[in-house]
Amino acid sequence: MFESAEVGHAVDNKTFRKEEEALRIALLQAQFRLREAGRLPVLLLISGVDGAGKSETIQQLYEWLDPRWLSTMAFAEPTDEERERPPMWRYWRALPAKGRIGMFAGSWYSAPIHDRIERDISQATLDTQLDSINRLEAMLVNEGALVLKFWFHLSRDGQKKRLKRLERDPRTAWRVTQTSWDRLKTYDALQDVAGHVLRVSNTAWAPWTIVDGSDDNYRNLLVGRALLEAIERRLAEPRVPAYPVAAPLARRVDDQNVLSALDLSVQIDDERYEKELAHWQGMLAELVRHKRFARRSLVLVFEGMDAAGKGGAIRRVAAAMDPRQYQIVPVAAPTDEERAQPYLWRFWRQVPRWGRATMFDRSWYGRVLVERVEGFCSEEDWLRAYSEINDFEHELAESGAIVLKFWLQIDKAEQLRRFRAREKTAHKQFKITQEDWRNRKKWTRYQDAAVDMIDRTSTGAAPWTVVEANDKRYARIKILRAVCERLEKVLRKG
Amino acid sequence: MFESAEVGHAVDNKTFRKEEEALRIALLQAQFRLREAGRLPVLLLISGVDGAGKSETIQQLYEWLDPRWLSTMAFAEPTDEERERPPMWRYWRALPAKGRIGMFAGSWYSAPIHDRIERDISQATLDTQLDSINRLEAMLVNEGALVLKFWFHLSRDGQKKRLKRLERDPRTAWRVTQTSWDRLKTYDALQDVAGHVLRVSNTAWAPWTIVDGSDDNYRNLLVGRALLEAIERRLAEPRVPAYPVAAPLARRVDDQNVLSALDLSVQIDDERYEKELAHWQGMLAELVRHKRFARRSLVLVFEGMDAAGKGGAIRRVAAAMDPRQYQIVPVAAPTDEERAQPYLWRFWRQVPRWGRATMFDRSWYGRVLVERVEGFCSEEDWLRAYSEINDFEHELAESGAIVLKFWLQIDKAEQLRRFRAREKTAHKQFKITQEDWRNRKKWTRYQDAAVDMIDRTSTGAAPWTVVEANDKRYARIKILRAVCERLEKVLRKG
Repeated sequence: MFESAEVGHAVDNKTFRKEEEALRIALLQAQFRLREAGRLPVLLLISGVDGAGKSETIQQLYEWLDPRWLSTMAFAEPTDEERERPPMWRYWRALPAKGRIGMFAGSWYSAPIHDRIERDISQATLDTQLDSINRLEAMLVNEGALVLKFWFHLSRDGQKKRLKRLERDPRTAWRVTQTSWDRLKTYDALQDVAGHVLRVSNTAWAPWTIVDGSDDNYRNLLVGRALLEAIERRLAEPRVPAYPVAAPLARRVDDQNVLSALDLSVQIDDERYEKELAHWQGMLAELVRHKRFARRSLVLVFEGMDAAGKGGAIRRVAAAMDPRQYQIVPVAAPTDEERAQPYLWRFWRQVPRWGRATMFDRSWYGRVLVERVEGFCSEEDWLRAYSEINDFEHELAESGAIVLKFWLQIDKAEQLRRFRAREKTAHKQFKITQEDWRNRKKWTRYQDAAVDMIDRTSTGAAPWTVVEANDKRYARIKILRAVCERLEKVLRKG
Repeated sequence: MFESAEVGHAVDNKTFRKEEEALRIALLQAQFRLREAGRLPVLLLISGVDGAGKSETIQQLYEWLDPRWLSTMAFAEPTDEERERPPMWRYWRALPAKGRIGMFAGSWYSAPIHDRIERDISQATLDTQLDSINRLEAMLVNEGALVLKFWFHLSRDGQKKRLKRLERDPRTAWRVTQTSWDRLKTYDALQDVAGHVLRVSNTAWAPWTIVDGSDDNYRNLLVGRALLEAIERRLAEPRVPAYPVAAPLARRVDDQNVLSALDLSVQIDDERYEKELAHWQGMLAELVRHKRFARRSLVLVFEGMDAAGKGGAIRRVAAAMDPRQYQIVPVAAPTDEERAQPYLWRFWRQVPRWGRATMFDRSWYGRVLVERVEGFCSEEDWLRAYSEINDFEHELAESGAIVLKFWLQIDKAEQLRRFRAREKTAHKQFKITQEDWRNRKKWTRYQDAAVDMIDRTSTGAAPWTVVEANDKRYARIKILRAVCERLEKVLRKG
């Protein structure tokens, strides 16, 4: 992996100065066009061995480019707000917006490499983590990002020499710490692990560039040119290619499916409703105060046709909790800050901390429901969304979030009754719009999309509960009960 | 202050149910119109003695209103991200956006009251803090917010009774802790301190409502109606009144001012420039690694006419630092999330953590420069901005931020030379637009605005440095030197 980086690259100062002038102007212009286009973010991951010039090259890019549209994030110890969320949360919140260039000094590769060198994780765990990373990067690239990964390499002798040189210069001596020298001892282990990591994560959509770190001029020119070329090429492309290209869904043979199989006539009477409501709400109130919930969080997703009773169900769940403990997120149009990011970003930012709950009234599933049916995104986009969503929820679950998803199913006649009732009730009129009537006409297509969604995204860690919702009372009790039983299982086990 | 809250208010269940139905519908409709109008946020501060029904009333409001557009924030121990910023930062980040209703359970009053009861702060410090709070609330109200403050009161016996009742009910027993009973012992102290706090902060723009907490029905109706009435009244008002009304600036008698007094012919030669640049950059590089800087932050503001050299100066300062340590914030058009908040919000969100720096290429001073000159805000708005900005910077400085502000002054002829040069240089053409030429025609008005700004916002903790910038080299050295000397004074003192 590192062979070509050890042959001894060097660029003399005269050549460098000549090349630099043209490169700088070209980079500035590329950055300007990137900003004007405003449709893709550029993310540079700068990793590699200590002393290989990572900081120097970042500094060089700041000198070449307009630094007002650059940002650099380093990821030291996570803050407590970060620790109480999935490990990837800190990277999501630091992603550059479309039109900007962001550099991660250290990145999602740092922890896996470090943990494997220390033998804190097995080879199998490492590979699982790398698989997640590859999938994440594919998602970013498919969402339009340009992801450039640089590994700064030095031979063992080269590293020793660089550290000594840095230490001699009073302006850089501070950068050489005991840790730097310690790292020299684990040089071979790092080469081993990094070599494996780079091979496995050297994907078609986000390949690595190995940079020989020994010569400043060579290193800076290499990275600067790679950045320039990548931006220019991407800006010239009409559309981002999808990695991997998703296959279309198989056509259905009959009408039997998880929704058509439901018996929507189920109902419960008022008396039983009041009794069960009190029972499950009381139980939920206790469960969210369980001491183990202090290191857990709760994510509830509510989806269903218009007027399926999502809002009413959310209120009954929320009523059992303290408003300081939960947030209800109604999915409205994305803000412009959200539009400048991958579609999942606006949900990542709502991920609750430990001890808290977030209830989504509609959710990231919009991608495979409304966006699919209305054609707001391309077929490749919603096809790849199934696995992207599974990955997202897997991350949530891995970090301690308890995830439940509810599809509230009503039939077409019931929806009509509710629409008419809303029109007649003064304070509910704003709940019914022309759009609701338009969506109703596409009933079958929405149902098909819902069936595909449930089939493809119901996982052990984040299951769908399909809820017969013609009777609102029945639906609310079924939902409350599902939440309680899941919480009980998770919190009281062992 | 609490007399009327102890006369024994109560509403029987029958009356309550009758009133509730109408109130609920009216509240829902008011909330809907609030959202449609989208021009004001509603902030409820819910404070008071333990057991006085704060949680119950919040819960009641969630039942009456559409909970998807409500949020409730509680403020326990600050997180480490909050601790490294001004105390008000955590409240700023939690402010509801326009069109939404946010409740703070506990608020900026909690710490001052607590600290005074514990005698951790003097009466004078308390009053200083209350003065800041009053000014903050005035700013929020002037920015369009509806700020409603509720103090939930109970007599000493009433509190004892409520705590016992809560403790008896298994559904609420968890809320009564040893702290609750301990608070009963400090009942008199709380009444004393709270009485004073409420009197001093009972302003025309954000008055307190004292709520007798002993009867659930009465308490909920009172708060519900107060909220309804306040929203309806504010939505009916064409414009938010300014508190307090700002007086216009006195007209100038002559042309002598801090900018006209400058000698713009000052310059330094290349040789001295290179020497001094290396000297001050080296010094700055050391200063930002000083151990005391780990509990400090650096905020630099750069203002000046177009082509005054702000960008170039920022680059020379930044070059001395590690890109992981600083952020350059160019002030572009606000995003829609930023437009839904007070004008200072988008700068609050960029406040650096300890050990970090933020450099603003244009800043919150846009309010008293471009917004004033171009008429983007009303005269009252920019007149009140001087003290709002002073308050903001005071908060920054109090929390350990080192704040420096630079006005780069060039003359009109120099600007013309630079515009022309930019037009001729291929990679700088994008730096010159029609707007720059338009702004140039308003030269005098911008200069007047700058003079007023410098006179009114240069403070000991956040001074303006006026920089003769016809010679770019001179300007850069003067700025670097000012930053170094200030850092040195702050970090190396004592």
